[in-house]
Amino acid sequence: MNKQRASKALTEAMAECAAMVETFLKNVLSSQKSCEGKLYSAMGYASLKGGKRLRPFLTLQSAKLFEASEQYALRVGTAIELIHCYSLVHDDLPAMDNDSLRRGRPSCHIAFDEATAILAGDALQVLAFEILSDPKTHPDPNVRVALVKGLAIASGGGGMVGGQMIDLESENCDVDLETISRMQRLKTGALISFSCEAGAILGKASVEEKQALIKYAQDIGLAFQIADDLLDVLGTEEATGKTINKDGEAGKATFVSLLGISQAQKRAQFLIDNAIGQLDMFGNKAANLRAIADFIVERRA
Amino acid sequence: MNKQRASKALTEAMAECAAMVETFLKNVLSSQKSCEGKLYSAMGYASLKGGKRLRPFLTLQSAKLFEASEQYALRVGTAIELIHCYSLVHDDLPAMDNDSLRRGRPSCHIAFDEATAILAGDALQVLAFEILSDPKTHPDPNVRVALVKGLAIASGGGGMVGGQMIDLESENCDVDLETISRMQRLKTGALISFSCEAGAILGKASVEEKQALIKYAQDIGLAFQIADDLLDVLGTEEATGKTINKDGEAGKATFVSLLGISQAQKRAQFLIDNAIGQLDMFGNKAANLRAIADFIVERRA
Repeated sequence: MNKQRASKALTEAMAECAAMVETFLKNVLSSQKSCEGKLYSAMGYASLKGGKRLRPFLTLQSAKLFEASEQYALRVGTAIELIHCYSLVHDDLPAMDNDSLRRGRPSCHIAFDEATAILAGDALQVLAFEILSDPKTHPDPNVRVALVKGLAIASGGGGMVGGQMIDLESENCDVDLETISRMQRLKTGALISFSCEAGAILGKASVEEKQALIKYAQDIGLAFQIADDLLDVLGTEEATGKTINKDGEAGKATFVSLLGISQAQKRAQFLIDNAIGQLDMFGNKAANLRAIADFIVERRA
Repeated sequence: MNKQRASKALTEAMAECAAMVETFLKNVLSSQKSCEGKLYSAMGYASLKGGKRLRPFLTLQSAKLFEASEQYALRVGTAIELIHCYSLVHDDLPAMDNDSLRRGRPSCHIAFDEATAILAGDALQVLAFEILSDPKTHPDPNVRVALVKGLAIASGGGGMVGGQMIDLESENCDVDLETISRMQRLKTGALISFSCEAGAILGKASVEEKQALIKYAQDIGLAFQIADDLLDVLGTEEATGKTINKDGEAGKATFVSLLGISQAQKRAQFLIDNAIGQLDMFGNKAANLRAIADFIVERRA
């Protein structure tokens, strides 16, 4: 498959995945009791019509390698996406990154209010665990409980939340490449990595297969962050739907400020090549995972 | 057993339970990587040296009815307590209840800062699910996953967080007894109820036994809230370790403002009598559960 065709297939597959996530999320949110209407409005606002759905896509594509059920993978990928959505709501709060724009729309605390945004984030987080623990996610309780444990570790103090803490703390001090790499590995890397690992858990993959997927995910996760830092410098607010150059204005160290634009671009490409190399054992079935790796360094939003 | 002896036995059993929770939590928090030191300090601040540990106590005592392992019950009760602790941290935030005093000490966001308090709350929440999903909590994955699902439902939008949303919304409008009862049932009742249900899950109780425990917990949960409202009017800041008469000053409807002091006291006693009635089938093994029901209406802090 040439690169152009791979890219077209990727675009279609991602759109299909995003539509499935959207439908599933709408069902989940509407089946909840509606008495606390404002809470559910805010949860929907923060999780529907959202982004590229990269994490569910990685889970679906990883699960597909092992011919695991797409319906199971969709539930798991959506649970991971809910963790991602809640983290954006809390990160945007005035006490945190104080960001009023998200995906081209007012952030949740602007569209509602701060208290509602805090609660909506809390409820989105726990909804992820409700979905994973439900028998509909997988008939084998060993699989469900492994998914719960993996997601909890990836998103807690030793994962995503820990990375956000390093990020906040690093605003006030000199940060080197090692710190910023560690910060990324926790803040965004852990969840992206678990998105692929979850597919392997659903597919009861071998240790070797799971490790290859995790390494792939770690490399694209880091490349994704470098691409994000590049977009913050080179992108436009219109294309990205979020505030641009906020890192520079906040005097925050990024991969770009530490490496320079050209070296950062090279580093991202090196990581992508590495990531694609991990997929050799999966042959043609990994075409979309290869394409998404390329997409990450080439994206404009 | 007369009431005085029951009360002495209860005090000892509660202190023992609280000490076990403290030790377990210290172990859990210190075994986490300490690089994000500030996050873990805040998590410890918000969860150690904390309160009466009512929820873990209910789990331990409920598990004991079925001779379930105390070590398992301790892990489960502590996970529930972590949800309670995180909710206090988020509820105290300026955007929510704006409370600077908690358990006689500065609230988490005062002792640290708002961003750290938000993150510490997020990480405490997910730590609860990490603990529940770990094989150390119970060898049977069906039990672990039932605990995860039960805790997720009790603490999410259809439980604790939903109740907090009703509470915030009700500040701006006339509230009747039905709304305030529903608010309590979600905000504090769901988690207290699950504390007992979790013991029944661990003990593989019959449907009848589980239902009796849940009804017991719902009644003491509501009585607990009425007692809390009474303390807010009748208590002292010194004894309770928190800001007093804040509901009255905020013009907030409570069981006491709607029923009056005397009727509220009667209602609490009626609920306690009902709750104790549910325990008949458990005989002497439920002595501490009976004693804690009495303790709830008689407490001074």
